[in-house]
Amino acid sequence: MIYLDNSATTQTRKEVADFVAKYSVENFFNPSSVYALAIKVRNDIDNARNRLLKFLNAPKGRIIFTGSATEANNLVLNGLARKNKKILISTGEHPSIYETAKNLKNFGYDVEFVEINKDGTLDLDDLKSKIDERVNLVSFIHVSNETGAINDLKQITQIIKSKNPECLVHCDGVQAFGKLKINLYNDDVDLYTISSHKIHGPKGVAGLYINENVMLKPHILGGGQEFGLRSGTENPAGILGFTMAAELMYTDFEKKRTYIKELRNYFISLLEKSNLKYIINSNKDGLENILSVSFFGIRGEVLLHCLEKYEIYVSTGSACSSKHIGNRVLTNMKLNKNEMEGNLRFSFSEFNTKDEIQKTVNALKTEIQNLIG
Amino acid sequence: MIYLDNSATTQTRKEVADFVAKYSVENFFNPSSVYALAIKVRNDIDNARNRLLKFLNAPKGRIIFTGSATEANNLVLNGLARKNKKILISTGEHPSIYETAKNLKNFGYDVEFVEINKDGTLDLDDLKSKIDERVNLVSFIHVSNETGAINDLKQITQIIKSKNPECLVHCDGVQAFGKLKINLYNDDVDLYTISSHKIHGPKGVAGLYINENVMLKPHILGGGQEFGLRSGTENPAGILGFTMAAELMYTDFEKKRTYIKELRNYFISLLEKSNLKYIINSNKDGLENILSVSFFGIRGEVLLHCLEKYEIYVSTGSACSSKHIGNRVLTNMKLNKNEMEGNLRFSFSEFNTKDEIQKTVNALKTEIQNLIG
Repeated sequence: MIYLDNSATTQTRKEVADFVAKYSVENFFNPSSVYALAIKVRNDIDNARNRLLKFLNAPKGRIIFTGSATEANNLVLNGLARKNKKILISTGEHPSIYETAKNLKNFGYDVEFVEINKDGTLDLDDLKSKIDERVNLVSFIHVSNETGAINDLKQITQIIKSKNPECLVHCDGVQAFGKLKINLYNDDVDLYTISSHKIHGPKGVAGLYINENVMLKPHILGGGQEFGLRSGTENPAGILGFTMAAELMYTDFEKKRTYIKELRNYFISLLEKSNLKYIINSNKDGLENILSVSFFGIRGEVLLHCLEKYEIYVSTGSACSSKHIGNRVLTNMKLNKNEMEGNLRFSFSEFNTKDEIQKTVNALKTEIQNLIG
Repeated sequence: MIYLDNSATTQTRKEVADFVAKYSVENFFNPSSVYALAIKVRNDIDNARNRLLKFLNAPKGRIIFTGSATEANNLVLNGLARKNKKILISTGEHPSIYETAKNLKNFGYDVEFVEINKDGTLDLDDLKSKIDERVNLVSFIHVSNETGAINDLKQITQIIKSKNPECLVHCDGVQAFGKLKINLYNDDVDLYTISSHKIHGPKGVAGLYINENVMLKPHILGGGQEFGLRSGTENPAGILGFTMAAELMYTDFEKKRTYIKELRNYFISLLEKSNLKYIINSNKDGLENILSVSFFGIRGEVLLHCLEKYEIYVSTGSACSSKHIGNRVLTNMKLNKNEMEGNLRFSFSEFNTKDEIQKTVNALKTEIQNLIG
């Protein structure tokens, strides 16, 4: 199997899965119980918050745990929507932000959409023109899940806060966390979403960083867990597995970055040497994990299933949506019809090899040759 | 260790935890991806829905999976709140229902509270008096998490639907599922919440049964997973672990019920033979898993920590709340101050033994003797 769909989800590391299993049997206590064995579990969760916080370089806030990054993103938008205020999001956001914002708009909240550039990054001029004193939240993606394009957090928060110092900034870091060095303190970001299953951790757990200045209304109510912001019995084993996965991502970090960049550049060099007709939608400064390529004269979905015969797994744009309604983000990037139709997203992990890349490009050449001659 | 706090949470079965670990490594694909390996995972989830549905005897609906029972309960109340309608809940509900209902009330929705009896069941006269044509949802607990008292679903739905046939009925089955035979078709229940971690399954996963006639607004928006009702990348390993745990609960079911009833009755008989001064708050027809006892002249929390020295783990009322604000449900059951203060909840599983029960009552006798002479 050649798995090049690591932006959709990643393989859970065996050592993480085994740890989660062991912990869930041995430390199964409810963290809300008052005896010492349960308090140990509660302390393990609190330690996990701090272990993760280190990778965000955010000394003045805390992480709360949720059941998914989607839930975290819903919490941010619903928790900060105010009738007399305005929320800005970009047109390149993940559905968990985009659909939630549209829903708020339907319920009479003021929501505006910032345009994106052809690489997927925010259109900064459009952003500037839309920031005013009524905006209390801007939410945007750190790394585009379609192209890997990186939004410059510091530049963007400066634009926002120079026009409105009270405005909060939320960044959806699902594709960035574990793959970029993050410094929320330096970049002046107030809320940041992170996810476990994108970094070889267990599914069903994610986190939201919240700066101390943020007053958030909870989205799920009940027993008051997670500082009253996310009720429901905690998933300690999942939380600790997530934390372990994050620590493994940031071990030998620079070496892994270099290695994955080599894989991506090797892929590009093989494409360049081929006779294939294509355009690369990812920019050079984007995150090396994602390579978005549009092949001309062929539908991405057809090509995806051709590659499946070789046990090569890729994606036609993001797999985050279970609806097949065309690709909103690529449309908003103003790709033309040909570029959209032939789009494939290859996404890499540290476990991929150059040999796999070579086999993939060979398969592409063979299959495209067969299909369009 | 003598673990008698199985209503707070249960130990994950080792075989379930190991299965979850193996599945999450081997079948890690995103169920929203379009290749065969991902579709297999999607099919596994759909099969899990049907495997669980069998235990609810509900041929006309489906189960959706959530990150917690609290989330499922929030979905029900928020998803059915309408400005021109009314919601009824009881005063004996879990915080995930009670706090959500109070929040809706604060936002101008019409919410009314049905009284409970001294054993924790619904006050049926009060229920009757409050049902009218404006009520579109009644939500109540199946088995009280404080006493084990069982609400008679069929009797209650008949009362509700004879006065208002359009009214939907939601039942919080967290303490009941896996421990009672359930027949939602026969009992005419429209929505039913079930939880994994109360039946020796993994934490971080739960389910909501929804009858086909129910139109629910989603609470978490995004990629449209779970039939558009609960967005977010699914947790297939957790879902399948939950399902496996449920199947194990319903294996040798009658034998286990008899065994746990023997444990509870043995506990009661040892108390009767002792010189202890106490009152039992659980009724005889209640679920055998829960025994709520109030010891006179002593605070439950003190006794809990005394038992902890013997590695005996129990609860002072429900552990579902992380806030320590006194026990609302016991107050609403109209226990007097003495009864409330000395309350302990012993909750059993099939893994407890008679020897453990004997040791527990011996420890109670020794410690109460030491404390009050």
